[in-house]
Amino acid sequence: MTREEKYEHGLNVLRQIDGEAGQKVVDSLADISPELGHQVVAWGFGEIYARPGLAPRDRQLVTLGILTALGGAEPQLEVHVNAALNVGLTPQEIVEALLHSAGYCGFPRALNATFVAKKVFAERGLLPVEM
Amino acid sequence: MTREEKYEHGLNVLRQIDGEAGQKVVDSLADISPELGHQVVAWGFGEIYARPGLAPRDRQLVTLGILTALGGAEPQLEVHVNAALNVGLTPQEIVEALLHSAGYCGFPRALNATFVAKKVFAERGLLPVEM
Amino acid sequence: MTREEKYEHGLNVLRQIDGEAGQKVVDSLADISPELGHQVVAWGFGEIYARPGLAPRDRQLVTLGILTALGGAEPQLEVHVNAALNVGLTPQEIVEALLHSAGYCGFPRALNATFVAKKVFAERGLLPVEM
Amino acid sequence: MTREEKYEHGLNVLRQIDGEAGQKVVDSLADISPELGHQVVAWGFGEIYARPGLAPRDRQLVTLGILTALGGAEPQLEVHVNAALNVGLTPQEIVEALLHSAGYCGFPRALNATFVAKKVFAERGLLPVEM
Amino acid sequence: MTREEKYEHGLNVLRQIDGEAGQKVVDSLADISPELGHQVVAWGFGEIYARPGLAPRDRQLVTLGILTALGGAEPQLEVHVNAALNVGLTPQEIVEALLHSAGYCGFPRALNATFVAKKVFAERGLLPVEM
Amino acid sequence: MTREEKYEHGLNVLRQIDGEAGQKVVDSLADISPELGHQVVAWGFGEIYARPGLAPRDRQLVTLGILTALGGAEPQLEVHVNAALNVGLTPQEIVEALLHSAGYCGFPRALNATFVAKKVFAERGLLPVEM
Repeated sequence: MTREEKYEHGLNVLRQIDGEAGQKVVDSLADISPELGHQVVAWGFGEIYARPGLAPRDRQLVTLGILTALGGAEPQLEVHVNAALNVGLTPQEIVEALLHSAGYCGFPRALNATFVAKKVFAERGLLPVEM
Repeated sequence: MTREEKYEHGLNVLRQIDGEAGQKVVDSLADISPELGHQVVAWGFGEIYARPGLAPRDRQLVTLGILTALGGAEPQLEVHVNAALNVGLTPQEIVEALLHSAGYCGFPRALNATFVAKKVFAERGLLPVEM
Repeated sequence: MTREEKYEHGLNVLRQIDGEAGQKVVDSLADISPELGHQVVAWGFGEIYARPGLAPRDRQLVTLGILTALGGAEPQLEVHVNAALNVGLTPQEIVEALLHSAGYCGFPRALNATFVAKKVFAERGLLPVEM
Repeated sequence: MTREEKYEHGLNVLRQIDGEAGQKVVDSLADISPELGHQVVAWGFGEIYARPGLAPRDRQLVTLGILTALGGAEPQLEVHVNAALNVGLTPQEIVEALLHSAGYCGFPRALNATFVAKKVFAERGLLPVEM
Repeated sequence: MTREEKYEHGLNVLRQIDGEAGQKVVDSLADISPELGHQVVAWGFGEIYARPGLAPRDRQLVTLGILTALGGAEPQLEVHVNAALNVGLTPQEIVEALLHSAGYCGFPRALNATFVAKKVFAERGLLPVEM
Repeated sequence: MTREEKYEHGLNVLRQIDGEAGQKVVDSLADISPELGHQVVAWGFGEIYARPGLAPRDRQLVTLGILTALGGAEPQLEVHVNAALNVGLTPQEIVEALLHSAGYCGFPRALNATFVAKKVFAERGLLPVEM
């Protein structure tokens, strides 16, 4: 594959997973670091995410865990809570995953991630979450 | 439930998930902080992990993500790679989850976690992993 | 104790320590993750914080250290700078604790935490801090 | 040197490296923790940064790496992207350093740092960055 | 004060707080970075720790919180659990502080710190801890 | 380029930078996650590190900053202190960079990194470092 083909392949994956939110991140890199945008798309999505060894729903569970634990990754968490919904995780499962995280990385990280989920769910008309 | 009953309930969950590795951690706390051991078991497993809203296999994917991202949590990762196998994740899926993590928290974290998985898989006769 | 009684007990502790700020966090979880709110209150405050083995003033010093080091926990730090004042730490002691943290987790973390303290102190009419 | 002389020496270094942005940080500490401001200036810049063993341009590369990896240090990163430009790193080199960081601490940290650089470059009329 | 006097002053503080453990760290820096050793002593202890605004026992509570939250700082935690005992914290209070930390930075960090405390307490004949 | 050619290209870069240490890491992944090894080499080195926009010496300064700040990345830091020497940083500059890091991520991180450098310098006959 050429560089351009790799990008197009990654963009297809990114669009299926992240929807418009992912595209917006890439667009906002155009005037500062188009290469970072290229690598997120072509490598992150086209080469890694697209691998068949783990289903998208599983990947999003891992990603929610990582981004919650990192802290300070709220913008990426917003994209990936949307992605989690896109690939089939229910609001209840996402909320439960973030509650689960409290024992492993503490309440502050779990709270910040849950408030990101609240913002995303509100935008998508998914509040309140009935558990 | 009494305090003792809550502990017993949590211990049953912990044994199903973590097997002997979890029990050993709790035992090693007996002379320094039995209360921390109690809370890991009664709260962490009995009250949070046991909730039906997310399957154990899903919880382990989140946990692998968190522990990989935290760094310096290799002892806990060793317990939870074992747990991941116990609840039905295949070696291939675990390895893929750790590869996936590289894009989100970098190669050093992904490498350290993968070498923990290698140790666990070696002990359980699961090497080499064919992908 | 029933689940409700544990919650009420924790809420009493939380109100004494965190005041209204803690209550607001719990309220804002009502439509997204009431269970996370329950666990912060019933477990975090009712079961752990309420233990007599360490005085509230001591607990707040530990908490200031943790939240400063974590980074990205500014919302929680805001609650806990208020809590620190509520349990008897003086503005001077809080500022000194954050200066002390610089050597252990660096100036950026110490600066961010100090600016959170400045916001809280301003709201409570405690500026300038005379040292 | 007296305490005041040490401060003046550090302030000269800080002004050469960080420009007005560094001065603003120190000023905003005046009513909450002047001692933290003093130590950033007198120790951080006067005693450590001023040492001849590593050139300012080299120091800024190390600093960009640290602040990107820490996460949650966006205010400090903003000061230090400005500083990086002040000591001779080009916009292209800064952007490349942040792309480089993705492999070591992941895309979320690299993205957040790159968007801080974008803000600084926009303020200094340095967009778009041609690579 | 001259550079040497500042070092001597800091060394006196360090010896009172950390005992021999702190001295050993400084000694082990002699052939690789004596300047880092100098700064830990002269600045960290002589200039910051020695400030009267916060009692050593309070400083150690903050430090235990920071080092527990950081993760990967087990060697420093070992020094500072010793220091905590030296300045008057009881084994019970230290263990309680680390249990308290679980809610703020998660069980893995709390466990790792507690096992460091266990090592130190064992060396000082303080096991088992009765709570 | 084919997948194999990309790997060979990356391996050439990795060998020039990391020497045998990098090769060993890749070899140790052969039976657990050869794909992670492939991506470190083909993407990390072949596609990112090989880019001409930043000199290897500059990249190593950024990398030292990142790995020091991350904590828990001592195995990778060992590879990259070796790499830093390989691309022309002097022992004095490396030690100075780690001293510089203390102000940004604290003494514990700076100390751990400096002791990794001490191990590498000892193996290469570079101790003591004269400053």
